[in-house]
Amino acid sequence: MSPRDPHDAGDAIARAFDAEAFRREGRRVVDLLADHLAAAQAGRTPSGAALPVLPPIPPEAMLARWRGDFPEGPTGGGLDALLARVIADSTQLHHPHFVGHQVTAPLPLAALCELAAALLNNGMAIYEMGPAATVMERRVLGWMAAQLGFGDGAAGVLTSGGSAGNLTALLAARQARAGFDAWSDGTAGVRLAVLAPASSHYSVARSLQVMGLGAGAVEPVPLDGRLRLRAEALPGALARARDAGKRVFAVVANAGSTATGSFDPLDAIAAFCAREGLWLHVDGAHGAAAALAPETRALVAGIEHADSVVWDAHKMMLMPALVSAVLFREGRRSAEAFAQEASYLFQGDAAARDEWWNVGLRTLECTKRMLSLNLYASLSLLGTRLFADYVARSFALGARFAAMVEASPDFELAVAPDCNIVCFRHRPRDCAGAALDAHQERLRARVLESGAFYLVQTRLPAPLAGVWLRTTLINPATSEADLEALLCALRDAARAPASPAP
Amino acid sequence: MSPRDPHDAGDAIARAFDAEAFRREGRRVVDLLADHLAAAQAGRTPSGAALPVLPPIPPEAMLARWRGDFPEGPTGGGLDALLARVIADSTQLHHPHFVGHQVTAPLPLAALCELAAALLNNGMAIYEMGPAATVMERRVLGWMAAQLGFGDGAAGVLTSGGSAGNLTALLAARQARAGFDAWSDGTAGVRLAVLAPASSHYSVARSLQVMGLGAGAVEPVPLDGRLRLRAEALPGALARARDAGKRVFAVVANAGSTATGSFDPLDAIAAFCAREGLWLHVDGAHGAAAALAPETRALVAGIEHADSVVWDAHKMMLMPALVSAVLFREGRRSAEAFAQEASYLFQGDAAARDEWWNVGLRTLECTKRMLSLNLYASLSLLGTRLFADYVARSFALGARFAAMVEASPDFELAVAPDCNIVCFRHRPRDCAGAALDAHQERLRARVLESGAFYLVQTRLPAPLAGVWLRTTLINPATSEADLEALLCALRDAARAPASPAP
Repeated sequence: MSPRDPHDAGDAIARAFDAEAFRREGRRVVDLLADHLAAAQAGRTPSGAALPVLPPIPPEAMLARWRGDFPEGPTGGGLDALLARVIADSTQLHHPHFVGHQVTAPLPLAALCELAAALLNNGMAIYEMGPAATVMERRVLGWMAAQLGFGDGAAGVLTSGGSAGNLTALLAARQARAGFDAWSDGTAGVRLAVLAPASSHYSVARSLQVMGLGAGAVEPVPLDGRLRLRAEALPGALARARDAGKRVFAVVANAGSTATGSFDPLDAIAAFCAREGLWLHVDGAHGAAAALAPETRALVAGIEHADSVVWDAHKMMLMPALVSAVLFREGRRSAEAFAQEASYLFQGDAAARDEWWNVGLRTLECTKRMLSLNLYASLSLLGTRLFADYVARSFALGARFAAMVEASPDFELAVAPDCNIVCFRHRPRDCAGAALDAHQERLRARVLESGAFYLVQTRLPAPLAGVWLRTTLINPATSEADLEALLCALRDAARAPASPAP
Repeated sequence: MSPRDPHDAGDAIARAFDAEAFRREGRRVVDLLADHLAAAQAGRTPSGAALPVLPPIPPEAMLARWRGDFPEGPTGGGLDALLARVIADSTQLHHPHFVGHQVTAPLPLAALCELAAALLNNGMAIYEMGPAATVMERRVLGWMAAQLGFGDGAAGVLTSGGSAGNLTALLAARQARAGFDAWSDGTAGVRLAVLAPASSHYSVARSLQVMGLGAGAVEPVPLDGRLRLRAEALPGALARARDAGKRVFAVVANAGSTATGSFDPLDAIAAFCAREGLWLHVDGAHGAAAALAPETRALVAGIEHADSVVWDAHKMMLMPALVSAVLFREGRRSAEAFAQEASYLFQGDAAARDEWWNVGLRTLECTKRMLSLNLYASLSLLGTRLFADYVARSFALGARFAAMVEASPDFELAVAPDCNIVCFRHRPRDCAGAALDAHQERLRARVLESGAFYLVQTRLPAPLAGVWLRTTLINPATSEADLEALLCALRDAARAPASPAP
């Protein structure tokens, strides 16, 4: 790099911060995204061509499309041109045929909030680094806690994702119920464990392994035929763990599970935890939102007894990722999970724990984004009912899709869905076992290659053992007609001749 | 909630996704933010009034300004009106008088990328959930690794913040150097520890406590007079840890430290780690960017020998929070840190570890934001030199501010700054000890109340023991004249009569 002239360098940096250039570029980007949004919701590109839900380009070929040798000086190129390429090479969550993973087609209003949050960049580790963001977070969490039925002592944090949320909750559980000061003393010398169904998200096991508890830290609780935790199996699981020399500190339950969206029976599980003095953590990343609508509230009956709940707003609350709430029935638990001194941040001491406005004391993050802005603005401007309606409609669509699958002799439903996650498979005659599994994988690959739909697959445990197609009806633009088209596309894929061996 | 009409509910949801409404609202938001940006860079509001760097409103009063009783239906209010209130109640990172924490005034271009990333919402746990985002992340990480001097085998991940980054790196270190399969077997039988200076960010100790290693897991390494790790003290620290029955698996070094921005001598530390078979983790959240400019490169000499480096782009690379890179000299370490099965995500098995395109295998997060977009776009369109220039100019401004402080008989410099973090204090006659500490706290509080500047304070260890004012010259708009004004503002605050007891 050649020697720099400080004055020229300063000019270049100042130009990069020019507000009028931002205004011009910003309008172009908004126009680009608006054109894309309108078209994507109709399954089209702005020029009217069919929009693949997933660009049919494998990783190495995609890598070749994006250069890694960045120029030394400015190119003069516009951001809108680059973003047009990004759009074309991305997965289209606003396409009505996106029925894949549990990441939502976000509200455009919420995306605009992210623009403001990014520009203001209030880091929120302490109140001084995000006054409005801090109180908005408190308001949003208060509203969410009330929806769950938590009382006045509840509190929580927003954090960057459900995995971080599960880890945060399990740290609080460890601190509250390990029987000693695990945070200060460490956990060498004791084998801590939790009871959790095999249907739990992998971040539960991962969190425990992060915590140094090893792969044996989850004592599995058996599932029933709909892949829900069998509450009557809890005493046996606890006994098995104890017999193996483990000290159980928590039960993790799902509302609902990742693979099939099954809701564990929280009331019965909570009663067991109360009897045994165990922490109840509910992974409600997907389904805690069921608390919002009268039609779906029964699915989470008992959630008000949980000690902690994770609830991802980027799943069933239409927010862009990541906005995860970790809610504690007893709010003080959230500060007890992390007790750290950092004099450059926190002037106080133990008293600072009780300062709700210094959120860095209660999260894995120190600096974080203004996580609350999109949810606060959406609830304030659009109202709460829209979210309740969205949940109720999505779950109802899951039931209707299940009925469509059951009415189709060539398809098989895995379990009657509790929510908007539906697992099923195509069932050709004389096909079973490994061949049937391979058949599902082939169908999915063909449909993805065509760009017509994005759906996923999962291997379910016994008694359903095998590979199943998995859909999450998370985009509010997805209709019954789209789901009919999905079944047709899968039938077409099943009829297509086997592709020649590569 | 009254019973809903499914059709009406669908209409309301569809309206919330209307692309033309997004276009109109988006233009208003861009205009609002452009007006704000132009004014804030001049220390003004758009109407020409003085803009407080930090709104002088305490937490409880701020809470009262933001309602928590969200309406059931839409209010018809505009997002721009709500965002205008958010701006007024936020900390102004683009104000030239923001010299507070290490969170940057972000590039407006990068903020626009966040809008696109939020709308596209490609969650990136696997390639299918973010094709473009995945390869852009690989390109950005490849460029960053090359800047550090890492070879071809290097790889890494982008994650949500430096704290998550330090945890990720320490998990990899544990797995590589604990001497057994800590991930699978757990760490119950052994007391693991790291060597780290007391100047380390609190997330290092916090990460180890998350990992169940307790408060005793950091064996402190003594500092020199400029608060840099004394490399010659490493053997003694290692011996002390071992004598106490701890198994040391890593050394954590700072480039630079949080409180004073001191850069530890990486070359000498790396040589020690190589001799002892210890993992070297460099927390370069703030200062790894020194590698970008010839004028500052020497500060991180030896970083190419580190096993892992954390580098926050939201600190010295002008990105909005959070964009943290965790870079591994041996890329395979990043997958070894997390070995988890999740059949609904990863069709493969052990082989999937080698699939660079499924990033969920290598991060704490499952879903994450399109973290790479802002950095990829900024490097592509603005060029790399702008970032090198920014780092060199910021660090040089730190040296000039230190000279200004030293030239002022009423101010005292803590240590000659290595970078753009400068700690100093006001030194009235006949004031020492606790009174001098209280004096700094009072000055800071008065300046913050006036809204004129945002600076922070920190308690430094011996030999500097006491409370110091702390500035980070992270906003490229901050000039020497602004820093002269800061010293004047502090002098004025020192002269002001004591406020009446509350």
